[in-house]
Amino acid sequence: MTLHIDSNRLWQSLMQLAEIGATAKGGVCRLALTELDRQGRDLFVGWCRDAGLEVRVDAIGNIFARREGRDPTRRAIAMGSHIDTQPTGGKFDGNFGVLAGLEVLRTLNDHGIETEAPLEVVVWTNEEGSRFVPVMMGSGVFTGAFGLDHVLPQKDVDGFTVAGELDRIGYAGPQAPGEVPGGMFAAYFEAHIEQGPVLEAHQLPIGVVPGALGQRWYDMTVTGMEAHAGPTPMNQRHDALLAASQLVQTVNRIALDHAPHGRATVGFMQVSPNSRNTIPGTVKFSVDFRALDDDALAAMDAALRDACASLAATDERLAIEVEQVVYFPPCRFDPACIASVRQAAEELGLGNMEVVSGAGHDAVYLADVTPTAMIFVPCKDGISHNEIEDASQEHVAAGADVLLNAVLRQAR
Amino acid sequence: MTLHIDSNRLWQSLMQLAEIGATAKGGVCRLALTELDRQGRDLFVGWCRDAGLEVRVDAIGNIFARREGRDPTRRAIAMGSHIDTQPTGGKFDGNFGVLAGLEVLRTLNDHGIETEAPLEVVVWTNEEGSRFVPVMMGSGVFTGAFGLDHVLPQKDVDGFTVAGELDRIGYAGPQAPGEVPGGMFAAYFEAHIEQGPVLEAHQLPIGVVPGALGQRWYDMTVTGMEAHAGPTPMNQRHDALLAASQLVQTVNRIALDHAPHGRATVGFMQVSPNSRNTIPGTVKFSVDFRALDDDALAAMDAALRDACASLAATDERLAIEVEQVVYFPPCRFDPACIASVRQAAEELGLGNMEVVSGAGHDAVYLADVTPTAMIFVPCKDGISHNEIEDASQEHVAAGADVLLNAVLRQAR
Repeated sequence: MTLHIDSNRLWQSLMQLAEIGATAKGGVCRLALTELDRQGRDLFVGWCRDAGLEVRVDAIGNIFARREGRDPTRRAIAMGSHIDTQPTGGKFDGNFGVLAGLEVLRTLNDHGIETEAPLEVVVWTNEEGSRFVPVMMGSGVFTGAFGLDHVLPQKDVDGFTVAGELDRIGYAGPQAPGEVPGGMFAAYFEAHIEQGPVLEAHQLPIGVVPGALGQRWYDMTVTGMEAHAGPTPMNQRHDALLAASQLVQTVNRIALDHAPHGRATVGFMQVSPNSRNTIPGTVKFSVDFRALDDDALAAMDAALRDACASLAATDERLAIEVEQVVYFPPCRFDPACIASVRQAAEELGLGNMEVVSGAGHDAVYLADVTPTAMIFVPCKDGISHNEIEDASQEHVAAGADVLLNAVLRQAR
Repeated sequence: MTLHIDSNRLWQSLMQLAEIGATAKGGVCRLALTELDRQGRDLFVGWCRDAGLEVRVDAIGNIFARREGRDPTRRAIAMGSHIDTQPTGGKFDGNFGVLAGLEVLRTLNDHGIETEAPLEVVVWTNEEGSRFVPVMMGSGVFTGAFGLDHVLPQKDVDGFTVAGELDRIGYAGPQAPGEVPGGMFAAYFEAHIEQGPVLEAHQLPIGVVPGALGQRWYDMTVTGMEAHAGPTPMNQRHDALLAASQLVQTVNRIALDHAPHGRATVGFMQVSPNSRNTIPGTVKFSVDFRALDDDALAAMDAALRDACASLAATDERLAIEVEQVVYFPPCRFDPACIASVRQAAEELGLGNMEVVSGAGHDAVYLADVTPTAMIFVPCKDGISHNEIEDASQEHVAAGADVLLNAVLRQAR
């Protein structure tokens, strides 16, 4: 006897929210703390009030919509995500997690179901980081990863500050960051599109997320000797691109050596002078390493540095610099919350598998302060952060059903 | 009993010509058919008249300065190169070959030496191709590689035409291209800095040039699938840069398989979308193959296409396009002319070795119509097409001495 959300209502809410900032190509451009973000927030808050929820806003603009429980001593179970988008974003990234949470509460209202614990739906401010850095700003402030004093003065490219824009759109709230009535959440669940191709490839509707990969990002610089392509014999060259291309292969091998969760990407490369008949003198490129535990990340780091040192040792006029520029620790979600998600999926008869999160999410910060889990649903071709991002009504409904039943397990 | 040129006079002429268009970094910017080119041409023509030479100009602006011989039935022996430069060029590229030729005639005047055959020094128009394409325009028109009707309407980036600029600077001459008094040159010798590191590495002053490498240039496009670096497992990727970097390695190996004259360079690469946490969807890059014979070039071409086909066959979502965009045939210089250069160097006691020309030169076109050879001298660190291009007075004098004695062998 499992409960189901209202699939059509959820889908209509997603489509209605997607109209705010809709782009010609079918996507959404609703950057954090813009007038469009205000309109999206107002729409959400209006729906919450219609559903009888009590709305609070904190000092970084996170929105909390609360449905009280029967037991005044219980701490709230929270759901949520974000509604800001990338400049060329889609309808589902973030929005799905927020509206699935709202749909859970609407469904409980429909059926007159009271829970023991209070339930909350949260909109986290500026998850995308497209307009203001750092990314995952709202959840980071809420969980203490960084302070208000750090983020409020942050400026966008036009010089507007987070503090000023929060005031302007009317979402600089009175609640202190991290404060929750009755104490910190007892648990947090975030539903999200997978943003990858795994569920689609396995034709399964539900991803049970054991955690999120840690990340180490690097800036690499290979310096050789610029020279004419014609008159320079092969054995008198110090070709920076030849060395860099060897390192691209090495970086890939390092990820394969740490299967299945090791990942490595060279996404950026800049060749200088970048002229077709000149041997490249300098190549800069990025390395993005991800893994599910810190030992693996450290081993990948060591393998990269070893490979660079070995390659540089073959040619005294070749220099290779390795600079780590970003580190996010790996995140393991809460076993009990994960189990609730898996059991909910099983009871609903929904095929599921473990899918590790390769990207960061608000849930990764929440996991620092409360037991947390995520629920993934497939997105078309694994594409996200793109106007053609797409997901099916069937899959988002399945994800919201799992969210509903996982939360009910915790809230009883 | 070998003759020597006047080393100081040659050096002073080189330095004086280098003042026209001199750059702050010690180089020269004297683009073809500009006001500065006119000033450089006027200086050269003045020197020629001072030396008693008869000056002609043809319809593409090539300048011919003639010293008559004793035998009216003999065809002229020519020397020369160009005086236009790259935008950030040096003092020696081209200028050395022209002024070495002038110095040969001045030296014969000094010593009152008459030759049987007439001698000419030629300035070829727009060798560099920096302002107007095609490169090696003047020698190409002279030898019939392309017609006046093709090159005269060519425009620079500001819309000025070759025809208009020739008129404006006063170098649209009456002589028909390819016409020489008494018939086509009996031989052509071009002295040039090596533009590569071989002579310097061997500490030898003279390069005897057996020919110039043929060239095949390609535009390559690798298309995979753009995707998020985080959520996309290694085994579900179609990484265009990973494939391209493998081809960079392959291109290099193909050159090594055709040692010693096979050369291969990837000088240009453009990654899209070039974002550090996005798997590249498209990579465009150049391939520059060079070899001393067409069979080798054809084998290199086949090896490249095979490697691309094999790589594309490993992943149905990976496409690799190979488009040949430039072809210059290999050039073998004339054995008798080459022998004259070698013998002149030996008689002068100058250490020498064979150095194939990796770059194109006016001499490559001249070789289509007359027995031709080149003489290389070292340049510092093999650097050319650069404001820091440098050569020693001792080496340019040695090159001009070899030119003088090689020409005398032919002109007697």
